[in-house]
Amino acid sequence: MTLIVHKYGGTSLGTAERIQAVAERVIETKKQGHQVVVVVSAMSGETNRLLSLAESVTKTPSPRELDVLLSTGEQVTIALLTMALKEKKCDAVSYTGGQVCIQTDSAHSKARITNIEVERVQKELQQGKVVVVAGFQGVDEHGNITTLGRGGSDTTAVAMATALNAKECRIYTDVDGVYTADPRIVKNAQRLSSLTYEEMLEMASLGSKVLQTRAVEFAGKYNINLRVLSSFEEGPGTLITKEDEIMEAALISGIAHNSDEAKLTVIGVPDKPGIASHILNPIAEANIEVDMIVQNVGLNNSTDFTFTVHRNDYGKAMLILKKTAKDINATDVIGDNKIVKISVVGVGMRSHAGVASTIFKALADKKINIKMISTSEIKVSVVIDEKYLESGVRTLHMAFGLGTE
Amino acid sequence: MTLIVHKYGGTSLGTAERIQAVAERVIETKKQGHQVVVVVSAMSGETNRLLSLAESVTKTPSPRELDVLLSTGEQVTIALLTMALKEKKCDAVSYTGGQVCIQTDSAHSKARITNIEVERVQKELQQGKVVVVAGFQGVDEHGNITTLGRGGSDTTAVAMATALNAKECRIYTDVDGVYTADPRIVKNAQRLSSLTYEEMLEMASLGSKVLQTRAVEFAGKYNINLRVLSSFEEGPGTLITKEDEIMEAALISGIAHNSDEAKLTVIGVPDKPGIASHILNPIAEANIEVDMIVQNVGLNNSTDFTFTVHRNDYGKAMLILKKTAKDINATDVIGDNKIVKISVVGVGMRSHAGVASTIFKALADKKINIKMISTSEIKVSVVIDEKYLESGVRTLHMAFGLGTE
Repeated sequence: MTLIVHKYGGTSLGTAERIQAVAERVIETKKQGHQVVVVVSAMSGETNRLLSLAESVTKTPSPRELDVLLSTGEQVTIALLTMALKEKKCDAVSYTGGQVCIQTDSAHSKARITNIEVERVQKELQQGKVVVVAGFQGVDEHGNITTLGRGGSDTTAVAMATALNAKECRIYTDVDGVYTADPRIVKNAQRLSSLTYEEMLEMASLGSKVLQTRAVEFAGKYNINLRVLSSFEEGPGTLITKEDEIMEAALISGIAHNSDEAKLTVIGVPDKPGIASHILNPIAEANIEVDMIVQNVGLNNSTDFTFTVHRNDYGKAMLILKKTAKDINATDVIGDNKIVKISVVGVGMRSHAGVASTIFKALADKKINIKMISTSEIKVSVVIDEKYLESGVRTLHMAFGLGTE
Repeated sequence: MTLIVHKYGGTSLGTAERIQAVAERVIETKKQGHQVVVVVSAMSGETNRLLSLAESVTKTPSPRELDVLLSTGEQVTIALLTMALKEKKCDAVSYTGGQVCIQTDSAHSKARITNIEVERVQKELQQGKVVVVAGFQGVDEHGNITTLGRGGSDTTAVAMATALNAKECRIYTDVDGVYTADPRIVKNAQRLSSLTYEEMLEMASLGSKVLQTRAVEFAGKYNINLRVLSSFEEGPGTLITKEDEIMEAALISGIAHNSDEAKLTVIGVPDKPGIASHILNPIAEANIEVDMIVQNVGLNNSTDFTFTVHRNDYGKAMLILKKTAKDINATDVIGDNKIVKISVVGVGMRSHAGVASTIFKALADKKINIKMISTSEIKVSVVIDEKYLESGVRTLHMAFGLGTE
């Protein structure tokens, strides 16, 4: 008998009717002859309700106590879903993270899973029960309640699938799969039937916010088949798996974009060893995440150093850089917070040069100016003016034959 | 260093402001040089909110899952109160029932505490921390979450006080102590400075709903000093302790009443051995609790058998009795659901006869007819027509010199 892990987010569990619908879906999978473990998030709105309770008491809640508070959200959902399953004559039992037990380190609010004890869960499954597990939460070695951070329920689901050697981990969301581009921008974007972990990582971190990055990494590390499906309609969804499971890898899987970028450039930086860390250290110390980094070779032993940050961090980064620029005798600091990043992603990408030249030609034809370029193993990203976001995504989607418009 | 246990109910923790006030009170006790353990209930309204969530999913929730659901209520409160304490620079740490661990049997929704492991809590106390414990909940030997039933937080507080050998267990409520009678009925009712466990049991079970009966029994069994105080105003409250701690036991401590009674009488019951169980078994099987039982010796080998039940159970009990009456060849069944019970309570009560005659005379002077009488070691109860409830309580309060009116 094979085991399937289901995972449902807060929107899928937001009302009594939706909880009933989830129960029906679980029972359907059970009837197909599978064992089922269900991982659930808090009902939509619940986490925010609890956060505002905490805020009414203190502006700086103790991280340990915040985890005690927030973990009640999923505990409510496991109880309700299990009641609904039993009401429908499907034997089921709920488990909190601590009861499983999902062992984590002690980093409250961003704990990492270190071990999962599966004996009790396996016993329940063998007795024919559906096991409903609270996502997002665990316990550290001292029995303190921890949480894995927002979206951590995906990680719980993948970790349970790994520990229990599940056949598939199905992540039910409000979209019916991963698309070749954002369907709100590209009307004829296609649902991908499958893609690799690496591609999904690039897609996810670039703005296709379907799955938690950590969950995809975890699944890739242990080769767990992940499937993204809709909670609200039937369909095969998108399978995320390892490369050799995919019959015919496409050259390009999709076009991702990120519209919250800003870029900063330090001009006339004396070209000395260690200068990059001089510039980036104060940024890192201020907890600002840096995305793309480009250094142009310049004239006269000086260079221009450019990087991108989240748009919210633009002002803070600019202040820090101006001080750094003085310290290192750079000429000036300039910036632009009206930019977006578009990325072309695909494990089938054999030659960056070929992909890059297709990108350049396609964007040039539309008179879209490229401000930065960066490449990784399976993607090529370009930064352009934000006003070209939609036409840029559509142009590249068509240029790589992912759909016509 | 002595340890004091505080217990706060839902009303005392109903808003952020009230949680702050509780934190201040705890800090005050700490400043007086005591170690403090705080036991809390769910915020007022929370348990009902959770129950209605369950009800939206099923009319017959699984008892195990209902406990998983309801126990989140106190978990929210321990987190919030601990945050509030830490905000005020008082080091504190929260514990769920499972974390303590408060071991119970597996009777979901009405579990009984079997053991408490105090090592971790003691360690935290020794480090100078206030320990905030979730009331009402525990875990069974398999780690399943259990609850102690409504009002079980009082029991948790007394059990923690016992396990930790506390000097005193302070139950903070919305009244400032136990009174010689209900102050809403008797304007000059007096706050008792102390009374015995036995008296409190009679007072509590007879309608002075200040403390859970189980908690008082528990405290009596282990000689824990219990004190009932107001959450909202300063004052010494009422100490509940063993008899020899009380300097001068009064003859009568107070007048309790219960206004939700109904009585049923089976008339003309053939006086044979075992007839009482014949009558009461079907009542017990229907989960109807019987309070007073009186059997009058009758003529012609027949007897009248009368007992009281909660008014809500009157109709159901009547139906059952009518069937029973036929089976045992009784003459008839009559009943009255417009009755109340008034009890005179006191460990100093040496002679029932003396107390009873005072009662009879006082009530007779007011032309109040007594319908039933029953006595225990430390109380005499009478059943009267409900229209005489207030004048009955006031009359007896004055007759036993508890206050003048």
